[in-house]
Amino acid sequence: MTSRFLVEQIRKKESFLCIGLDTDLEKIPKHLLKEEDPIFAFNKAIIDATQHLCVAYKPNTAFYEAYGIKGWQALEKTINYINANYPEIFTIADAKRGDIGNTSTRYAKAFFEEMGFDSVTIAPYMGRDSVEPFLEFKDKHTILLALTSNKGAFDYQTKKVEGKELYKQVLETSKSYRNAENLMYVVGATKASFLAEIRNIVPNSFLLVPGVGAQGGNLKEVCEYGMNKDVGLLVNSSRGIIYASNDRHFAEAAAEKAKELQEEMSLELRRS
Amino acid sequence: MTSRFLVEQIRKKESFLCIGLDTDLEKIPKHLLKEEDPIFAFNKAIIDATQHLCVAYKPNTAFYEAYGIKGWQALEKTINYINANYPEIFTIADAKRGDIGNTSTRYAKAFFEEMGFDSVTIAPYMGRDSVEPFLEFKDKHTILLALTSNKGAFDYQTKKVEGKELYKQVLETSKSYRNAENLMYVVGATKASFLAEIRNIVPNSFLLVPGVGAQGGNLKEVCEYGMNKDVGLLVNSSRGIIYASNDRHFAEAAAEKAKELQEEMSLELRRS
Repeated sequence: MTSRFLVEQIRKKESFLCIGLDTDLEKIPKHLLKEEDPIFAFNKAIIDATQHLCVAYKPNTAFYEAYGIKGWQALEKTINYINANYPEIFTIADAKRGDIGNTSTRYAKAFFEEMGFDSVTIAPYMGRDSVEPFLEFKDKHTILLALTSNKGAFDYQTKKVEGKELYKQVLETSKSYRNAENLMYVVGATKASFLAEIRNIVPNSFLLVPGVGAQGGNLKEVCEYGMNKDVGLLVNSSRGIIYASNDRHFAEAAAEKAKELQEEMSLELRRS
Repeated sequence: MTSRFLVEQIRKKESFLCIGLDTDLEKIPKHLLKEEDPIFAFNKAIIDATQHLCVAYKPNTAFYEAYGIKGWQALEKTINYINANYPEIFTIADAKRGDIGNTSTRYAKAFFEEMGFDSVTIAPYMGRDSVEPFLEFKDKHTILLALTSNKGAFDYQTKKVEGKELYKQVLETSKSYRNAENLMYVVGATKASFLAEIRNIVPNSFLLVPGVGAQGGNLKEVCEYGMNKDVGLLVNSSRGIIYASNDRHFAEAAAEKAKELQEEMSLELRRS
């Protein structure tokens, strides 16, 4: 998917909501455990109920890998279901991969070709040659971790490297990567005040903002500091939506929560 | 596996060789492609031919994920085969994972419980709370990327953060992590001169050294600067061993290459 198409979808749906499919067998409604593939059954219901309210889905691969082959199969079924039924939706493999060059190419093939995701999240620690292999894939996007939303973000990311915080160095240097136009960035919403500075460094890039909801970010602040002329934001919510209820009406409850966020987003889009 | 047991195996086999199972369908002998699971058939042959010469196997997960479900199945079969037939061998999932706390726990379960690996490689960018969940598993080891062997290592890892190179900050701070005794570190062999300084920071930890062979490291130098009283080294070779030949005698050819390295290692162990 091109980022232009993504922007069109955001305008059309009046939403820049990304729903995190962090599906956990211990948290889904008990009646689904009788299904042949409870993880997929849950995802399918959530997707069908919320697809008109969001523009992106983001399964975190850890939740699937934890269940071995069965989890991996559920992930494949999920991405195939989205691509077959809602091809207008942007898909993110939240995998936080990254390895030396020839190995990064393998990961890129795994997520972009074998699985058909539109994008994948990547950790920047290993530098340029660990990221560029992902950028070679046309109309696929690489979402680089810049500033994450956890406490550990302050261990290295906000420390100064040659006079500038590491996460800013990551943003700056990545702009010179080959095919840098395929980059987006993860920026934790718990630090909305950082967003203005980040926008100065990468004015035109999409920012994936986790942490609105469970992790305590504020949508209004995120929009104030992070929005650009093409919106340039994907705001993620996972648990706050998908686990809104765990009874038989879980999908409707998820849709209600998604609708609340979509309406807030609609207001922010009109305001901008 | 305890690290004490690993040290015993190293002394017994006179080897600290780790063989990287980076299995690529385009590089394995053509006759194996007729097998039901060519990746596993290749791995099994390599393992049977080399298990007495090495103390560890390290599949890089990217090579398996690139083939989707089939790849993931081949990885499971491989780890199960090693654990069932050669339980004395230390196994490393070279996965370079890392995520926020509750998600890191998922990855830990995936590799330590679902798959039964002894260890997993982890990227440090997200800090303490992304690593500590892995350290909670008894007799399992977390191999933190400190200094990698690719060019991109010079982008951030060797840059000074508050007066000290980032990779040294990673080493230093990780020593205060809860259950830090379960940590090991990835240190690229292309920078053997760095090893002396690294040993000063983590005198007792195991170092996993990739890059001897294809990536140009020198075993003698690695031992001179990196060995400690308990050896403390796992030196990896992947392509140089597993792709020594691609005819019907590929496994014997791999064993010969492994034997050459094991003999060099034996000399270094006697010298120390």
